[in-house]
Amino acid sequence: MSRFPSVAAFEAALSELPGANTQAAAAAAARQMELTKPPGSLGRLEEIAVFMAGWQGQAVPVLERGRAAIFAGNHGCVVHGVSAFPASVTAAMVDNYQAGGAAINALAGVAGLDLKIVALQLDRPTADFTLAPAMTEQECLAALSAGAEVVTPDLHLLSVGEMGIGNTTAAAALCARSFGGDGAAWAGPGTGLDTAGLQRKARVVDQALACHAEAPRGAFETLRRLGGREIAAIAGAVLEARRLNVPVVLDGFITCAAVAPLFTAAPAIVDHCLAGHVSAEPGHARLLERLGLAPLLQLGMRLGEGSGAAVAVLLVRAALAAHAQMATFAQAGVADGL
Amino acid sequence: MSRFPSVAAFEAALSELPGANTQAAAAAAARQMELTKPPGSLGRLEEIAVFMAGWQGQAVPVLERGRAAIFAGNHGCVVHGVSAFPASVTAAMVDNYQAGGAAINALAGVAGLDLKIVALQLDRPTADFTLAPAMTEQECLAALSAGAEVVTPDLHLLSVGEMGIGNTTAAAALCARSFGGDGAAWAGPGTGLDTAGLQRKARVVDQALACHAEAPRGAFETLRRLGGREIAAIAGAVLEARRLNVPVVLDGFITCAAVAPLFTAAPAIVDHCLAGHVSAEPGHARLLERLGLAPLLQLGMRLGEGSGAAVAVLLVRAALAAHAQMATFAQAGVADGL
Repeated sequence: MSRFPSVAAFEAALSELPGANTQAAAAAAARQMELTKPPGSLGRLEEIAVFMAGWQGQAVPVLERGRAAIFAGNHGCVVHGVSAFPASVTAAMVDNYQAGGAAINALAGVAGLDLKIVALQLDRPTADFTLAPAMTEQECLAALSAGAEVVTPDLHLLSVGEMGIGNTTAAAALCARSFGGDGAAWAGPGTGLDTAGLQRKARVVDQALACHAEAPRGAFETLRRLGGREIAAIAGAVLEARRLNVPVVLDGFITCAAVAPLFTAAPAIVDHCLAGHVSAEPGHARLLERLGLAPLLQLGMRLGEGSGAAVAVLLVRAALAAHAQMATFAQAGVADGL
Repeated sequence: MSRFPSVAAFEAALSELPGANTQAAAAAAARQMELTKPPGSLGRLEEIAVFMAGWQGQAVPVLERGRAAIFAGNHGCVVHGVSAFPASVTAAMVDNYQAGGAAINALAGVAGLDLKIVALQLDRPTADFTLAPAMTEQECLAALSAGAEVVTPDLHLLSVGEMGIGNTTAAAALCARSFGGDGAAWAGPGTGLDTAGLQRKARVVDQALACHAEAPRGAFETLRRLGGREIAAIAGAVLEARRLNVPVVLDGFITCAAVAPLFTAAPAIVDHCLAGHVSAEPGHARLLERLGLAPLLQLGMRLGEGSGAAVAVLLVRAALAAHAQMATFAQAGVADGL
């Protein structure tokens, strides 16, 4: 049975976001104070350990079963020349993921994540969102449900990413609709547009915003009208992870843009999310600021396919190893209060 | 036989810095262009792969034998109350490293590094550098040599760090002497000084600078007069790594300050070094800028003991995995020039 059979099911999930286990988080924070280091001296690694404890509901969180989920979709707006690459590259890269030859295969391997590739009807691009909603209600619900399906209650962590020629254009539209600003404010070079291409892309975003200006502004309508299948799938995965208390590591601009419409309806949606990195796509830093998320990494990455999130999982591993394995002052016999 | 039996041997090493293998670096850069991603889209991970290729002298660098070296020493300047903790903590933490209970044990484990702890005469602190050189010539040469000893030609990577109550004061003095500025410009709270302590620390640095103002300004004299045993050992390890073409990941403020006097004599000394992170100690960002190094991580860490460098090694692993394991466009049959 699909997780989101109706818009009402989606809206119910968004209105019923469970909170972290504050007792487990407090126990983890207390443990950090007892470990043989000056309090706070591991910086964000300490925050990560406490965050993971809260969402896993245990003072000493683990990362034995982590999953990298990558969603792929195609976009009707590519007819406007918004990408440096043809839509056929989406399917070619999915083949590459499945054959094990992409960056995400190597990076998920290093990070110890199993890899789940979900290609969403690549032969059926979304509608051109400058003229009509990108998806029908049923299409959007199906994509949300496909996203939810990758999340299982046994996971200790989920990282999410995407592939889809044209999807930075959809992401820019989602950001503009969610937080204000026009196409120029949110459009970036993506995988390598030149200046003329970038101006064209900003115009396409503006046309899409104009087309849907009078439409209802709820999270579902925004996702369905301006998003895409892989984008809705990310939203579904993040929502389902929340229901199951699975912490999430977000990847770049598109992944975070998928959360933007949910955030405007329910800002707590990002509470179980870490921003893996800030990408080179200019809109990403702005978007993270709006979402109230501080990125773990700043490496100038701009590949997508969950690559930045997978690298960030290495920091989660470091944080959990220090948290679990370090001696306390009492155990080490070091003068307390270092 | 010790690596640096004389000042002349140290100076010879500093004047004979071998360069990277430019052919291997170029081959790695060419490979990056052929991998199934838009060129440059892995950001700094691509730079790291090319850097490692150049220093290892192979187009596809590896990280099978990596070492984290941690040097510990005690400082005469602690009599001035420049640290929030007693000097006895240095030895207690070394015991903790040896027992496996410290952050660096956990982090080196995650990063797959063997851990080498070198405690340098902890029962013989350096002299109070506000009154005299911190070390005699022989003491400084012995510390340099002890550092060099941790480097073996079979290493694929060395990360370096330190422990020593009082050593952020020595580091501030080294920075001021190497790059100008007074105590207030380079002193920071270290492991937790209050405002009064910080002012006291800045004054102690100023007194040390005044005491040695007329002394010769070469790298060796600066290290010996204002450094410490663990600091000289780091300088020796970095120099020896260069001779053996072993790439280095530097840790925080003190580790980088150990390189500062070498840098003023021979700026190319940092060419085989990556800055693992920028720490919360305010002088570190300034120092990295002077050294021309962009930190890989910005996590607000301020523990020392090589912890930030060890976490950064995870990024090196990610970079090398992508570089080695990704398919080329030709292999994947993806339209070239993605």
